[in-house]
Amino acid sequence: MEPQSAQAPPGPRGAVLWPSLIVYQIFGATADVGMTVFSTILCKTAARDKEHVYYLKPVSADSSVGSAAAYVRKYAGGVYCTTAMFPEYHLQENKEMGALASGRKVPPDWELLHKIRGAALQCANHGGRWLFIETTGGVNSPGPSGTTQADLYRPLRLPVILIGDYKPGGISHTISAFESLRMRGYDVEMVLMFWGGSYRNYRFLTQYFWSRYKIPVKTISLPPPTSAGDDKLQRYYHLASATEEFANYRDTLHEVHISRIDRLVSMPETAKAKIWFPFAHHNPPRPEDLIIVDSAHGDHFQTTRMELFYSFVYDGVLLPTYDGSASWWTQGLGHGNSTLSLAAAYAAGRYGDVTMAGAVHEPGLKLAETLLGGLKNPRLTRAFFSDNGSTGIKVALKMAVAAASYRYHWGEADDIEVLGLNGTYHGENHTVGYMKSTDLNRFDYNVAWHEPKGLWLEYPWVSCVRGKWTAILPASLGDLMGADTLEFASLHEVFDLEMRDAYIREIYEAYIRCMLDEGKNMGRKFGALIVEPIVIGAGGMLLVDPLFQNALVDMVRRSETCFGTSLDHHEDDAHSWKGLPVIFDEVFNGLYRLGRFSAASFLGVDPDISVHAKLLTGGLFPLAVTLASESVFPTYEKETSNTLLHGDSYTAHPVGCHVALESIRMMQTMEQRGEWDWARRENGWSVAADEDNKENPVEPIVWSVWDADFVVWLSRQRNKPSLLVRSTWALGSVLAMHLEVDLSVTAAADDIGAAETLEAVLRQDFVGAGGGSPWNVHTRAMGDTLYLMASQTTSKEDIALIEERLRDVFAE
Amino acid sequence: MEPQSAQAPPGPRGAVLWPSLIVYQIFGATADVGMTVFSTILCKTAARDKEHVYYLKPVSADSSVGSAAAYVRKYAGGVYCTTAMFPEYHLQENKEMGALASGRKVPPDWELLHKIRGAALQCANHGGRWLFIETTGGVNSPGPSGTTQADLYRPLRLPVILIGDYKPGGISHTISAFESLRMRGYDVEMVLMFWGGSYRNYRFLTQYFWSRYKIPVKTISLPPPTSAGDDKLQRYYHLASATEEFANYRDTLHEVHISRIDRLVSMPETAKAKIWFPFAHHNPPRPEDLIIVDSAHGDHFQTTRMELFYSFVYDGVLLPTYDGSASWWTQGLGHGNSTLSLAAAYAAGRYGDVTMAGAVHEPGLKLAETLLGGLKNPRLTRAFFSDNGSTGIKVALKMAVAAASYRYHWGEADDIEVLGLNGTYHGENHTVGYMKSTDLNRFDYNVAWHEPKGLWLEYPWVSCVRGKWTAILPASLGDLMGADTLEFASLHEVFDLEMRDAYIREIYEAYIRCMLDEGKNMGRKFGALIVEPIVIGAGGMLLVDPLFQNALVDMVRRSETCFGTSLDHHEDDAHSWKGLPVIFDEVFNGLYRLGRFSAASFLGVDPDISVHAKLLTGGLFPLAVTLASESVFPTYEKETSNTLLHGDSYTAHPVGCHVALESIRMMQTMEQRGEWDWARRENGWSVAADEDNKENPVEPIVWSVWDADFVVWLSRQRNKPSLLVRSTWALGSVLAMHLEVDLSVTAAADDIGAAETLEAVLRQDFVGAGGGSPWNVHTRAMGDTLYLMASQTTSKEDIALIEERLRDVFAE
Repeated sequence: MEPQSAQAPPGPRGAVLWPSLIVYQIFGATADVGMTVFSTILCKTAARDKEHVYYLKPVSADSSVGSAAAYVRKYAGGVYCTTAMFPEYHLQENKEMGALASGRKVPPDWELLHKIRGAALQCANHGGRWLFIETTGGVNSPGPSGTTQADLYRPLRLPVILIGDYKPGGISHTISAFESLRMRGYDVEMVLMFWGGSYRNYRFLTQYFWSRYKIPVKTISLPPPTSAGDDKLQRYYHLASATEEFANYRDTLHEVHISRIDRLVSMPETAKAKIWFPFAHHNPPRPEDLIIVDSAHGDHFQTTRMELFYSFVYDGVLLPTYDGSASWWTQGLGHGNSTLSLAAAYAAGRYGDVTMAGAVHEPGLKLAETLLGGLKNPRLTRAFFSDNGSTGIKVALKMAVAAASYRYHWGEADDIEVLGLNGTYHGENHTVGYMKSTDLNRFDYNVAWHEPKGLWLEYPWVSCVRGKWTAILPASLGDLMGADTLEFASLHEVFDLEMRDAYIREIYEAYIRCMLDEGKNMGRKFGALIVEPIVIGAGGMLLVDPLFQNALVDMVRRSETCFGTSLDHHEDDAHSWKGLPVIFDEVFNGLYRLGRFSAASFLGVDPDISVHAKLLTGGLFPLAVTLASESVFPTYEKETSNTLLHGDSYTAHPVGCHVALESIRMMQTMEQRGEWDWARRENGWSVAADEDNKENPVEPIVWSVWDADFVVWLSRQRNKPSLLVRSTWALGSVLAMHLEVDLSVTAAADDIGAAETLEAVLRQDFVGAGGGSPWNVHTRAMGDTLYLMASQTTSKEDIALIEERLRDVFAE
Repeated sequence: MEPQSAQAPPGPRGAVLWPSLIVYQIFGATADVGMTVFSTILCKTAARDKEHVYYLKPVSADSSVGSAAAYVRKYAGGVYCTTAMFPEYHLQENKEMGALASGRKVPPDWELLHKIRGAALQCANHGGRWLFIETTGGVNSPGPSGTTQADLYRPLRLPVILIGDYKPGGISHTISAFESLRMRGYDVEMVLMFWGGSYRNYRFLTQYFWSRYKIPVKTISLPPPTSAGDDKLQRYYHLASATEEFANYRDTLHEVHISRIDRLVSMPETAKAKIWFPFAHHNPPRPEDLIIVDSAHGDHFQTTRMELFYSFVYDGVLLPTYDGSASWWTQGLGHGNSTLSLAAAYAAGRYGDVTMAGAVHEPGLKLAETLLGGLKNPRLTRAFFSDNGSTGIKVALKMAVAAASYRYHWGEADDIEVLGLNGTYHGENHTVGYMKSTDLNRFDYNVAWHEPKGLWLEYPWVSCVRGKWTAILPASLGDLMGADTLEFASLHEVFDLEMRDAYIREIYEAYIRCMLDEGKNMGRKFGALIVEPIVIGAGGMLLVDPLFQNALVDMVRRSETCFGTSLDHHEDDAHSWKGLPVIFDEVFNGLYRLGRFSAASFLGVDPDISVHAKLLTGGLFPLAVTLASESVFPTYEKETSNTLLHGDSYTAHPVGCHVALESIRMMQTMEQRGEWDWARRENGWSVAADEDNKENPVEPIVWSVWDADFVVWLSRQRNKPSLLVRSTWALGSVLAMHLEVDLSVTAAADDIGAAETLEAVLRQDFVGAGGGSPWNVHTRAMGDTLYLMASQTTSKEDIALIEERLRDVFAE
């Protein structure tokens, strides 16, 4: 019973916001706190100035079908009340007597949200000024589907009025209910409650909420009992709404709304003035190009549509925007995931920061064990923690270079380089000197202190070219092979390493050997082999031929004499590094990004050092773990024992480690439950076991959430002059499109400019469809490569929608 | 009404844990859920095997003074029941009728915790096997002092049995109560509830808690009403405790306890095998030297006392250990701070990760505004976000070097260095190449690729030497001045820059000018001046003479011709950088670490670039902000516009930004409320306005939570042969002790070894006092420098306790 996805097809994903319409959602600290009484007062007070006021109670509890709306209509007067949308469905709390027991169909969460959005749109279009949406029961009472309400309504993320509890135990409920809302990203703007009864909960709560959160608590006396008669009730509501005090409350609610709108409108200019943006080619960005993210949920940002703030179009000013780069490749379990949110809070509450320097805490140790266990790589025994992928790679390099230097007796006078693949980018951002480990790539422009130190090999990479899965050979290999490309019937065939042509492997090995010998003959010294297994990410989103990487690791391990002469006795067991320590950079492509726990598992080789980050913390905050073999770990005798005398202040911060544990657990559970089986089995990636048995396809080695036939179709599209598809591939949650961008058409000065243009073109295309498109898609291009990255929770239906949009864009 | 400190003097700080005694705390989802009924059943079931069972209800609600204990005693039988410790105090919820209204004294939280610890210790010493501690009302019901119970009892962090609510609204309460406990770091091990009534809350909750959290929900029928007579009740309890099912519950509770103990015992060996520790001179550490941190609260870790796990001493196996390095200088608002915990959860719930690449979110923008506003430096206009202090500094260097290169027309062929202070360490850990910006320091051992690139000046530093505040001059300055030292009447006098001797300033300036000219004559090119204002942290915890740093910045700005010739017209307003961009590294010493929002404010000069991290996020996770002047910000025309094409994946992660906002807000509020006035006014740092008016001291420019007289006293201590004090100083929350460590006594090979030995010596001294010492102190030494760093919330009384211990150690 993880929260049901509120994102099922084909509903929109938007939060609800209009400048002209003030919407609040009313949550109760528990059942029976007078929610409908307060709704009535709020409605009546709001209606005093002849403004259009709407009231909506989408779900009713069993005994009160339609009655709340009738009550409000009766006592508030002049208020448009919408009867419950799902009167036939009851809270799960009452389900013994309710819908489920009687066998009625339970509406999915997305349908409920869709109806609420529709109702709100109607209010906006009919000149509504206020809309109060009342929930039922307590904040965590289950809605019709069983999803608890705080989770259920979260995609709308409406500002909240919390009705406090005036009864015994009510202080506790009210605070806990507030905390439950807060940890899900709700803004509680006001607490309302009765001051009646012998308890004076409001006194405590007024001070509590104001001093901690600057949230006002407002009270009113209990209404007369219904038995006192209608007149008394009418009088109660009349007085309540006529008081200056409640008019003030209304004004406060009004101001909160206006402030929010004003802030959203001013954010682009403020940001332009105050922020120095990263990853930006030209500074400062134009305010109109900035994406203002009001919140995010699931795969979608809620971004502002600036052009609508002062328009007469009554579309909401928030546009759901699919996070097509998985927030820089970090998101896997959705934005605003309440399970991860609570996990972060738990570790913050239990520890705060505890340094790992000479100390150990459970989340850090457990994460080390979980990663070591999950990777199933018998070489890896130890974890070193650092702050992000970049530092994780630096740690790996230090480990490797120190171990190689020790074994091969190199000293400070020796100039140690690394061996790697051409054009790769191992994630370092600001670290000038460290970028020595990569050659010049697209991110290196005028960076002082960057001196590449390494030998970078060319390599064959795989993509679907005009409908055909193809390995594209670099000139050096092509010459040896007498061909520019190799063709395959499927991507499965590419990855079925045991069935691959032995002759091809020999040529790969000959090339690698040649390069290693060349390095040796030039007297160059290498401290590590570093590769991103399978997919080169920021270096251009290239799918490397796994046979080549397999051969590369193999050759490095068999070519010890190319690297140095070990005079020492060193333990030479099956799990010790040989030749060079092999580093796998899985920062981007590990942890289910490509469909498996590790990218290394596709290659069938075990690295000596493995680096993990990004998806590790489910997209909350930075953390990296570098896992190492015992054979690179320094012991007392080694001079290298100062290799990692450094560390980060927040090394192995418990909050990050605990969230990582939760994040990994959730993804492993998804795998165990077969939640990606649709992609694995029904998405065209399966292959026939043999010619005679096409009915029973074998489980594919590789699969993607992106449809295999779609990828093939896309690779053939060359109809749009500015966007000619060169090739495409997909694996796991990644879809890559290598394009030919006509610079004369895009008017961009270079490939980074081209990327920016490409993003804009696509964005425009997606939005351009207007009302027809349920949501926008936000992408980040790299040069002439456009990619889309789903999260690990993106549904089949959402993928289909994006594919449909891409078909429109490219087929034009 | 921030939570009352549960750490008032002189009580211990420990969580409660004995291997032999199984303690659970019983929390209720709300009032009236049958807590005492379940306590009775738990006690009776536990007592079945003739084990000693204790029951404690420390605080009673008004109407039930002592009655819960009497009830349990009556129906559980054979159970040792402690009557309420504070029967006369009632929950705040009832305070209208309770203690406060009647004018009785409210016991402070620490006293209550102290009594509970004492009671538990008694149980352990009397062979107790089980102890159930029952709370009152709901988890967030206020305790006697008004602190809500979940916060109040948090220092004990007992494993929890949550009593669920079977009544209407109960699903919501139970989940919210669970979430409130969880976000405070509690482990809820079991949910118990009635299955009676027409609602079937347990069905929903059983599935909910198990599928999400693997927490079992166990039920039992409602007891007969009291009116049914005593026999019926006795029979109910007899049956309930005799069932196999409840025996299973007991076994589960038993297993949870055993697992926790087993894990704690095995953690050192497991950690030794699985973790590669940072900051460690020798690897691997000995398991017995590892500090196992079970949890942390306020300023204290709860660490294990391995020697007691199998002993017959009935002290608890957790030892409160003062976090004397403020967890690597990151903690300011206490570990396990529930306000920060909820802030983290809120931002995770609202956003997850949202990249700042071309996008903006409120926490990021607001944090930029808040820092820019708080610093009050008119030069700074813009914020760049990165992952930690190290990357923050790298960003600063890139900004500065690019701006200088642009103005002075340097290209790729030019070798750009930095200007800085000798022996400083600007926080870079793994970044090999970046460390070029620091010269060789204590952290540089055998690090490949480290080539320092800079000119580092010597400088005078200030410390209290044998009772006298003294500036220690480096040889170069001493020669010019004809003296080795300068003496001052107080630290205030050192910082009163306007009153400082003009002659001294002239000599400082002459020295600086000489160094700059030398650099110029050698044709060296500098891209930045980088300094840590006032205090050099990891470089040796040195207090630099502020007059020197003031003169340095001044001279650099007046010596443009030493650095290059600008052929361009550049805007030359009062806020533009001159000479070199000046970078202040405030990663360690900013944000109230030294008592003020910024360390720069002590110097009276405004840097062009300022870097902030560590305390920024209140000790939860890494985040850094580099603030820059508009004059270093590249515009379209400048070639330097690719300076920061890089960025971190988690750049400006919303969770970090939001927690930073909350953390800054809390510290600013403390300052406004005068919460450090005791340190400012009563701690000996005040100075007489003049000789004639000693009664009315002026507000000191500098102050510390460490007592001024104590610092002076400490500087004179040379009684212990292995620990001769050379000098001491204190500022804000930092106390530094520069020692002479006799290597022959400590048997350490070098200064890092010396530091480790020093830490061990002190630790041993603190623990050595045994029962007399309420808690241990964990410190990290650097070479021959020992420092203690309080948090911003450490109380005067705790400081006094640590000072007392230090007096014992050094006066021996």
